[in-house]
Amino acid sequence: MYNEKDEKYLDCINNVAHVGHCHPDVVEAGSKQMELLNTNSRFLHDNLVLYAQRLQATLPEKLSVCYFVNSGSEANDLALRLAWQYTGHKDIITLENAYHGHVSSLIDISPYKFHQMAGAEQNQHVHVALSPDIYRGKYCEDHPDPATAYAENVKDIIEQAHKKGRKIAAFIAESLQSCGGQVIPPVGYFQKVAQHVRNAGGIFIADEVQVGFGRVGTHFWGFQLQGEDFVPDIVTMGKPIGNGHPMSCVITTREVAERFMSSGMEYFNTFGGNPVSCAIGLAVLDVIEKEDLQGNALHVGGYLTQLLDDLKKKHPLVGDGPWPVCWVGPGKKTGIRGHLPLQKLRILKEQRILLSADGPHRNVLKFKPPMCFSREDAELVVEKIDQILTDLEKTLGLQMSEAVISENGHTKRKEPSDENGLVHPSVGSGHKHTGTLPHNKKKLKTL
Amino acid sequence: MYNEKDEKYLDCINNVAHVGHCHPDVVEAGSKQMELLNTNSRFLHDNLVLYAQRLQATLPEKLSVCYFVNSGSEANDLALRLAWQYTGHKDIITLENAYHGHVSSLIDISPYKFHQMAGAEQNQHVHVALSPDIYRGKYCEDHPDPATAYAENVKDIIEQAHKKGRKIAAFIAESLQSCGGQVIPPVGYFQKVAQHVRNAGGIFIADEVQVGFGRVGTHFWGFQLQGEDFVPDIVTMGKPIGNGHPMSCVITTREVAERFMSSGMEYFNTFGGNPVSCAIGLAVLDVIEKEDLQGNALHVGGYLTQLLDDLKKKHPLVGDGPWPVCWVGPGKKTGIRGHLPLQKLRILKEQRILLSADGPHRNVLKFKPPMCFSREDAELVVEKIDQILTDLEKTLGLQMSEAVISENGHTKRKEPSDENGLVHPSVGSGHKHTGTLPHNKKKLKTL
Repeated sequence: MYNEKDEKYLDCINNVAHVGHCHPDVVEAGSKQMELLNTNSRFLHDNLVLYAQRLQATLPEKLSVCYFVNSGSEANDLALRLAWQYTGHKDIITLENAYHGHVSSLIDISPYKFHQMAGAEQNQHVHVALSPDIYRGKYCEDHPDPATAYAENVKDIIEQAHKKGRKIAAFIAESLQSCGGQVIPPVGYFQKVAQHVRNAGGIFIADEVQVGFGRVGTHFWGFQLQGEDFVPDIVTMGKPIGNGHPMSCVITTREVAERFMSSGMEYFNTFGGNPVSCAIGLAVLDVIEKEDLQGNALHVGGYLTQLLDDLKKKHPLVGDGPWPVCWVGPGKKTGIRGHLPLQKLRILKEQRILLSADGPHRNVLKFKPPMCFSREDAELVVEKIDQILTDLEKTLGLQMSEAVISENGHTKRKEPSDENGLVHPSVGSGHKHTGTLPHNKKKLKTL
Repeated sequence: MYNEKDEKYLDCINNVAHVGHCHPDVVEAGSKQMELLNTNSRFLHDNLVLYAQRLQATLPEKLSVCYFVNSGSEANDLALRLAWQYTGHKDIITLENAYHGHVSSLIDISPYKFHQMAGAEQNQHVHVALSPDIYRGKYCEDHPDPATAYAENVKDIIEQAHKKGRKIAAFIAESLQSCGGQVIPPVGYFQKVAQHVRNAGGIFIADEVQVGFGRVGTHFWGFQLQGEDFVPDIVTMGKPIGNGHPMSCVITTREVAERFMSSGMEYFNTFGGNPVSCAIGLAVLDVIEKEDLQGNALHVGGYLTQLLDDLKKKHPLVGDGPWPVCWVGPGKKTGIRGHLPLQKLRILKEQRILLSADGPHRNVLKFKPPMCFSREDAELVVEKIDQILTDLEKTLGLQMSEAVISENGHTKRKEPSDENGLVHPSVGSGHKHTGTLPHNKKKLKTL
């Protein structure tokens, strides 16, 4: 990316510009179709059918009906409507810290959002399950079977809901939780959750808005990390799908779609699936394939993980997590977690590197670069992070004794400014962390 | 428009392709910006500010804060969120037959949609007011003051809601009802409704998604037909705003925006207000101005109205409404309304003219062509309609005695096929209609 002074930035966060900013093939496809025809979806157009076929081919056969919409929010809202109509039930199970979009129905199921609001009440039809986080969550790597344990929590929620006479329409989760802190659920968790939810008459919605389209490297979709035996009932897509063009998609089974259609209410979306959006969507798929960007994600993602793993060994500030994206502040050995000072990201920005932080404590570095990210890019960003950590640890050496450690995991925040106006990391909430992970076997698979 | 065989069609309905299909200025603006930079709205870009300023300049000064989103549905959903947050109230008053979008919160307030669904229940926080239709509605042209009478209905609804302990957040209406049957509210209605709603602590949302951007000819926005003294609290935009590009906008007052911001919940929309969307939006405004498309709407719209008025005098099938867009079937003199046979639109399509029908009985012809529609285009479509009406009336001459007339306005439908497989108009629900309108003084102002 370049700023208005034509200064170059390394973009490590723009998962919307999926195949690279202004990719010429995508620009050409969009421009050509804009010149030829763009109209609302009351008109049939070949692009619509061609694109639906191409998208469908990336998914298990059962997921065969596409609805084209304009944003991840429209996609997730439609997924809820499909679930409500298909099941005749109302209740939705969502995860802690989840974010699924900005329209009102999705604020309801996004603890990441509704917890921001003073005095917000959780809607009665919404149930919040434990985040399947094996680093900071209730069941960590030292637990014999965290996948089953977290899925049991969903089962408990269903049973509690049933006791109140409520009925489950759907479980919704990102295949890897993004804003919630880049949480990768343990393998087998989705299968077990799906079983509990389907037993209760509900369906499983996999939100791939942030993580789909080859980013996980080994697979095209994030949910496929759970294994071949897992197929969601609905998959929603968004951000990367059009390399920045406002478009998105919901894909579901014939059964769900037919029940929705039989309600008598026509689904119509003015811009969804217009010829330009479909042409752009097709071009994005072509580029991913032609440039083997999924392969690049696997390759460079693995390399970046290795570089960050080295940082972890070197720096006490980097957390001892199953993947090396957690900065947890001083004291990782004793299980005390810290606040990532967001100011440090500003230092990176001054050095022309765009990076951001996620998670409930904003202390997880988020890497979601365009998929053309190179080994050299990885080296550059890690080198800069290395330097910042070194400087920060030097300063913190003077400050560490001030850290207030609390036994019960609650925090007394202390964020004194240093002479440069920088805020030092305070001590975050912390569970005792004793796991010894074979890190090399749990590389971060996402770019 | 051209089909896949390169055959030319006259498009009388595509209000999305507002400044004309594939307008070169719009295509160029979009292509250029796509080449230069398209990114999500975490990044600031001049286009965003420039576009907000240009849009704001078309509106009363009080409406000064823009939120850029991706569709009319996203805009109306955000309008509801703003209203809920600003007022602290929950209830929404909407109009009969209203359509405000496809996300779940909007299905709730769209009788046009939720009535399609078998067994759909009206949400408790939703109240449906009479459509201010002075042709087919409760208070017609023969009423001394339909504006006040319809507004009183809203006041009654508010009082009933208050008796149940409920509180009004907003009244929402299209400035001219579209899917609801191209209903133009009597002048003064919005002012009176706004007064009642504001007295109850609620706000007024004007939905300009289908009717804004100069289409009404005399003004840039539909709500301005109500007079200079009327300013909504929120205006939502959509379809024509990007000439087909998926984008839209919510504009509100500083007071409403500040209350929303103070909730603590950040509003973020990935694609909303991206540099490409803003470039396209700016180009659309430029073309409207440069080609005086608002002036063309006034001029050609007036001419089309005159031509249709002539048809009305000639053909018993055309309703005697305040504007000549209603086809009401046989018997207009005695107040019996009919069903527009949609098959007739197919005949038009075979003749390469795209027209559609709207309203609860699908018997109102909808003219919403691109704004470059010409006098010659108007003549062509009216000539074709003339011919279809002549043929249809010839056939109906044999059938009129079979029309089943009901005293209480309810209908016993009869739709026998003629030898050509065409369905004849049945007798629709009918209020006695005795008004004698000075038609020349009530021209249809919309293209």
